[in-house]
Amino acid sequence: MVHLTTAVGLLAALCTTVSYIPQMKKCWQTGRAGDLSLKMYLILATGIALWVMYGVLQGDAVIVLANSVSLAFLATILVFKLREIAADRAKLRQGATPLRPPAEPAQSSS
Amino acid sequence: MVHLTTAVGLLAALCTTVSYIPQMKKCWQTGRAGDLSLKMYLILATGIALWVMYGVLQGDAVIVLANSVSLAFLATILVFKLREIAADRAKLRQGATPLRPPAEPAQSSS
Repeated sequence: MVHLTTAVGLLAALCTTVSYIPQMKKCWQTGRAGDLSLKMYLILATGIALWVMYGVLQGDAVIVLANSVSLAFLATILVFKLREIAADRAKLRQGATPLRPPAEPAQSSS
Repeated sequence: MVHLTTAVGLLAALCTTVSYIPQMKKCWQTGRAGDLSLKMYLILATGIALWVMYGVLQGDAVIVLANSVSLAFLATILVFKLREIAADRAKLRQGATPLRPPAEPAQSSS
């Protein structure tokens, strides 16, 4: 039972860690991050950094390692997001239209 | 020290759980999820579901509760993403242009 629990935990850690790779790849390929929530990635990165601290305090190398890798991936996604925000602001200062149109209300299809 | 560790863990769980709320709000307000990686949210939701299973096997109510809430938030974001993919496919079948232009290569600013 301990083996099963450990296996499930390691598989969970693997999934939550590698999950950010496709988003990094998508941002890199499209050069776009406009639909990503900056707040989500800032709060998530803070939470993951706290998990690293928790792992250090617990002396749990798996928690420290898995979350450190996740934090590096999240930081990369944040760079794409912040770069796009900076580019949009620069365009606005030049009086041009932003990269993305302003958000329109969601079409309720319910 | 145990109190500090527990506090850091609970704060980490709180951050990683509530972090998805701004993304849900953004998807709802803009009606857009095109820049979000479907693969990321599918793998992340799988990982979070495994964390719930891990919590159940460990008999850890905090892990089960925090990750169950996260899973509900992630499922909501996935609904926005899948709805946009379905809308794009329907438009393509009608011969119209998709909601989003095809991805252009990232402008290397390095």
